Amino acid sequence: MNKIPVAILGATGSVGQKFIELLTNHPWFEITELAASERSANKKYSEATKWVMSSRLKPELAGMEVKLCKPTLNSKLVFSALDASVAGEVETEFANNGYFVISNAKNHRFDEDVPLLIPEVNYNHLEIIKGKNGAIVTNPNCSTIGLTLAIKPLFDAFGIEQLNVVTMQAVSGGGYPGVPSLDILGNVVPFISGEEEKMKTEPLKILGSLKDNKIEHANFTISAQCNRVPVIDGHLETVQIKFKSKPTKNEIIEVWKNFKSLPQKLELPFAPKQPIYYFEEDHLPQPRLNSNLEKGMAVSVGRLREDEIFDYKFVVLSHNTVRGAAGGTLLAAELMKAQNYLNGIL
Amino acid sequence: MNKIPVAILGATGSVGQKFIELLTNHPWFEITELAASERSANKKYSEATKWVMSSRLKPELAGMEVKLCKPTLNSKLVFSALDASVAGEVETEFANNGYFVISNAKNHRFDEDVPLLIPEVNYNHLEIIKGKNGAIVTNPNCSTIGLTLAIKPLFDAFGIEQLNVVTMQAVSGGGYPGVPSLDILGNVVPFISGEEEKMKTEPLKILGSLKDNKIEHANFTISAQCNRVPVIDGHLETVQIKFKSKPTKNEIIEVWKNFKSLPQKLELPFAPKQPIYYFEEDHLPQPRLNSNLEKGMAVSVGRLREDEIFDYKFVVLSHNTVRGAAGGTLLAAELMKAQNYLNGIL
Amino acid sequence: MNKIPVAILGATGSVGQKFIELLTNHPWFEITELAASERSANKKYSEATKWVMSSRLKPELAGMEVKLCKPTLNSKLVFSALDASVAGEVETEFANNGYFVISNAKNHRFDEDVPLLIPEVNYNHLEIIKGKNGAIVTNPNCSTIGLTLAIKPLFDAFGIEQLNVVTMQAVSGGGYPGVPSLDILGNVVPFISGEEEKMKTEPLKILGSLKDNKIEHANFTISAQCNRVPVIDGHLETVQIKFKSKPTKNEIIEVWKNFKSLPQKLELPFAPKQPIYYFEEDHLPQPRLNSNLEKGMAVSVGRLREDEIFDYKFVVLSHNTVRGAAGGTLLAAELMKAQNYLNGIL
Amino acid sequence: MNKIPVAILGATGSVGQKFIELLTNHPWFEITELAASERSANKKYSEATKWVMSSRLKPELAGMEVKLCKPTLNSKLVFSALDASVAGEVETEFANNGYFVISNAKNHRFDEDVPLLIPEVNYNHLEIIKGKNGAIVTNPNCSTIGLTLAIKPLFDAFGIEQLNVVTMQAVSGGGYPGVPSLDILGNVVPFISGEEEKMKTEPLKILGSLKDNKIEHANFTISAQCNRVPVIDGHLETVQIKFKSKPTKNEIIEVWKNFKSLPQKLELPFAPKQPIYYFEEDHLPQPRLNSNLEKGMAVSVGRLREDEIFDYKFVVLSHNTVRGAAGGTLLAAELMKAQNYLNGIL
Repeated sequence: MNKIPVAILGATGSVGQKFIELLTNHPWFEITELAASERSANKKYSEATKWVMSSRLKPELAGMEVKLCKPTLNSKLVFSALDASVAGEVETEFANNGYFVISNAKNHRFDEDVPLLIPEVNYNHLEIIKGKNGAIVTNPNCSTIGLTLAIKPLFDAFGIEQLNVVTMQAVSGGGYPGVPSLDILGNVVPFISGEEEKMKTEPLKILGSLKDNKIEHANFTISAQCNRVPVIDGHLETVQIKFKSKPTKNEIIEVWKNFKSLPQKLELPFAPKQPIYYFEEDHLPQPRLNSNLEKGMAVSVGRLREDEIFDYKFVVLSHNTVRGAAGGTLLAAELMKAQNYLNGIL
Repeated sequence: MNKIPVAILGATGSVGQKFIELLTNHPWFEITELAASERSANKKYSEATKWVMSSRLKPELAGMEVKLCKPTLNSKLVFSALDASVAGEVETEFANNGYFVISNAKNHRFDEDVPLLIPEVNYNHLEIIKGKNGAIVTNPNCSTIGLTLAIKPLFDAFGIEQLNVVTMQAVSGGGYPGVPSLDILGNVVPFISGEEEKMKTEPLKILGSLKDNKIEHANFTISAQCNRVPVIDGHLETVQIKFKSKPTKNEIIEVWKNFKSLPQKLELPFAPKQPIYYFEEDHLPQPRLNSNLEKGMAVSVGRLREDEIFDYKFVVLSHNTVRGAAGGTLLAAELMKAQNYLNGIL
Repeated sequence: MNKIPVAILGATGSVGQKFIELLTNHPWFEITELAASERSANKKYSEATKWVMSSRLKPELAGMEVKLCKPTLNSKLVFSALDASVAGEVETEFANNGYFVISNAKNHRFDEDVPLLIPEVNYNHLEIIKGKNGAIVTNPNCSTIGLTLAIKPLFDAFGIEQLNVVTMQAVSGGGYPGVPSLDILGNVVPFISGEEEKMKTEPLKILGSLKDNKIEHANFTISAQCNRVPVIDGHLETVQIKFKSKPTKNEIIEVWKNFKSLPQKLELPFAPKQPIYYFEEDHLPQPRLNSNLEKGMAVSVGRLREDEIFDYKFVVLSHNTVRGAAGGTLLAAELMKAQNYLNGIL
Repeated sequence: MNKIPVAILGATGSVGQKFIELLTNHPWFEITELAASERSANKKYSEATKWVMSSRLKPELAGMEVKLCKPTLNSKLVFSALDASVAGEVETEFANNGYFVISNAKNHRFDEDVPLLIPEVNYNHLEIIKGKNGAIVTNPNCSTIGLTLAIKPLFDAFGIEQLNVVTMQAVSGGGYPGVPSLDILGNVVPFISGEEEKMKTEPLKILGSLKDNKIEHANFTISAQCNRVPVIDGHLETVQIKFKSKPTKNEIIEVWKNFKSLPQKLELPFAPKQPIYYFEEDHLPQPRLNSNLEKGMAVSVGRLREDEIFDYKFVVLSHNTVRGAAGGTLLAAELMKAQNYLNGIL
């Protein structure tokens, strides 16, 4: 099978680099174009960026000439790692010119005609772009994804009234150069600009139901407090939930263990075999030990116990740059291809 | 004035070392005896311990011979840094033999005749040992102290119905050698054995009212989740409160800023001039920047904002080995001396 | 092909766990016995140890009953992760009873009849155990291995007169619980007990020549200074060399790039395709980015430049628990099997 | 006594903030002007900078209006924390207009008429600005200062032929935002741009002798290798020396312990009582434990032992932003005032 050519917008940033790392040897997609700002355009990729991944950059990509982020690219499927300051207009321009843009940027997440997609959670929201020739599909914020994936089967089975979450987020979520070492070494910063607003709104769109080709947001209350901790990869979150119908502890664990969704059934290349793992050990999950579970695509939960104020509390861990960014976006592209949403591509 | 001779039980551990560091040049107290387990007894102090404080150990203490923790010590005022595995019996033995024991250990915290003391919060609880010749007074857990000090003026002014807290605690809270570096470097551990139980019970005794020489525990609900983070000193806690009578944001800040208590009026040597500081900046307080406020004896609060589920949320920071351990205990001793609770001493 | 059954001595420690992790799905070897001290014996493995690897422990190993380290084990090939306090006698007992012991412990490294083996460097030293039914083969110290592998081709090509090395070593080299977090978080400790002595003697035996079935140590001067840094995995070392015959910079780089040895020719499962990588970038190699090169079995070098005192200086990086411990030992076992040193096994 | 008014150039950067912190309550100097680039000029200081010191910024400084770095400032004594990209011209302009500029920037360090000053080491070099109305005096690089102070008494007593140094430097040396956390968390970077060149040249000027009002550089060989480590404050350096006349170990220690210089005799406010401390313990000095010795103005040495290649090796530690930057500059100003070099000031 011929691979589908893909382009990466914002290829020189850290999310762009992660896309390149994850797409290496992908069975369906092949990077044929790298695009970035004017400052980088026309340079060799290796000269336009400081490679900060732990894998080595392939020579054929190192030598690729960086292009501008203009809808003259040949690849009709583009992954956007653009900064929010430019992503809004650029992504719209691409979509209007017949490209399928799968984006990590926040700009279009709440557009009515744009799915805010976690493939296992709301694959059906892709319906709103069905038949389109060109569209934007967005990935949620890194702190939203792990949380929403972990609560999806509970939401379906027991209903949710209140959700309280406190995060301890890794520095890779801030990009490169991102968080200064003087701010975070041996320290915690109890504030991440804009993060709490995303966490209290995005899960409601993702868990929303599709009615008349529109997404009706879910209706429960979320409170979020976000902290930055000196961890490289892996967002850990403490979660408290009040359910509509309070389950037993075992019922929750069973629902988690048995959760599989469309990406698993389709056996998509980046789909984890099991999306959610429950740890019985008191001290787990931990970012350093468990973030890479199923190559960073699975979510870990642990310490489920009854709460004094809500019904239950537990912790959730997910890899913020794999499942929470480039990996999640890649899985979205795989799903769109497998379900024939990519009109005009192959 | 002649200084009061004091002894330190468990002098070789990290809390014991902190006592020694803080008591250096104290205007009222003078260390005359260091006591520890049989393994250390009869050795020179510098040979019995590995000094891990950042100040240098004074030669006269380095050369002091370590004694056993037996009630044959000359000093009638003793600070206990004993491990919980032995503190229970030893402290009782000392109290029964006419010593005043001020302890960091958890063993006697819920004894009916033992105050669980934060000098600014419940100095009146000392009434229950009034007139005694020998008694135990305990210091709360390090994660409890900052929290309870910060909510005390709110509790008095507005009443509390529900309190939800998630902690990010420093490694010095685990003693020495304590937390292995392989567990915590670039990591978060979402579990600290026994910590959540302490946090949901201790504040209720401390905020309790004294009736007929007994402490009637306060009556509200607390849920606590405790995490270990790679920070040396300073426990940061995210707090959510539902009040009996919801105040405005400004009312809360005013109550914090104006809070002063008996240790401030008595101008005790270790009393912070201002016990609670409110930070207006979004990114503060932080462990590395603010733990040492007023030599580690003040508590920092910040990010006060309305909550979607409770009434308000904010963050609290306090120095866990100063205000949260040795410094708090020292302040308790100063208060007991100033208020004449130390029968037979001086 | 039937796999060779192997046992692990000291299976509950962190090196023991690393053996288990690396042996998972090994094409030639299969763990059939786990052995440890009396404290752990007769327990299920998962109850005898606290698993601190980032991979999950397989159920069949989790449930395996731990045996004592006695030469009544069925597997004749044993990997020793024993502590130096017991390894000396136990390993001798096994060897005397017909077992082949490949050990990480320091005890027998300088025994005359024991090879101190880095498979790519001194595979010929295995000659001294040829024909034996039972023997000990030792792995060098973790800080020695990366260094010696990197200088081996230079030693052969240009001769070495003086070697000066300063290390910055990861905490995983200290085992578990090992280095306390209070000692190393945001800190450097300029001392590792016994390490400098190992570094100035071991390379000389490894680089020694075999004469009359005896190893004649190499003859040059080594000075070593060892520091512990807050890094999880990966020892970084700054190296200065005075050669017998001073090469050009390019000659050194060519010698490194072209270096291949017997394990590469035999295509042993754990052999890196290329043992030594040279990085052109000024800021590389770094522990976090490059330790896992070739699954942790390759050594990285960089920053080669002329020195003001010696001839050249450069930095070396190697993964201390893979190439520097369990992985190196495994490669030794593969070499011994491929070269038919394991008399009586298979 | 009226305090001398001083201005700070580059007041908004991290070195500028450190100047402000250290000058708070200084007995001789008073900050009356803060100057920075056009971007900050005319703003309130607290709005022009993000305060990252652990002390709180005083209200009178927070509210001070930032001025431009033009020689129209009223204070004739200025501390320069300017970036090297602008310091060259600006400092010259100030000196030419009758200002005394004490600078941390590298630009003028090797000018013939500019002392490169460590007050205890080469106070006599100030002779070259004697009688001038306006001059530049420079502070050496942070990694040079600790080293040169530690070797000064050895250089005087025994002579030095070769000096070999490997550094492990704190992130605060890189300013703010400086080193990205993704680069250094749990990592070591074996490269700091320009640092090795400074270390192999600056000590030779500082240890040079004054002849005919010119500085004749000292004449020995230095090799330096510089690494960045995840430490907040405190540069640790491993040092090897070949002496002209090899002393005993005790002779070296005595020379260190007895070293006092002019700043000590003059009892300057920022002068440490004892400039060099020798630690007997194997594991000391360490950045976290010992950087703040004598408020960060003393240098710690330890682990002195014979070397296999040079004569001796040892480690040196100094606080890079206090002794190595703002504190050292302040001490220089005190010395200049006490010795009457500040023509026209007071």
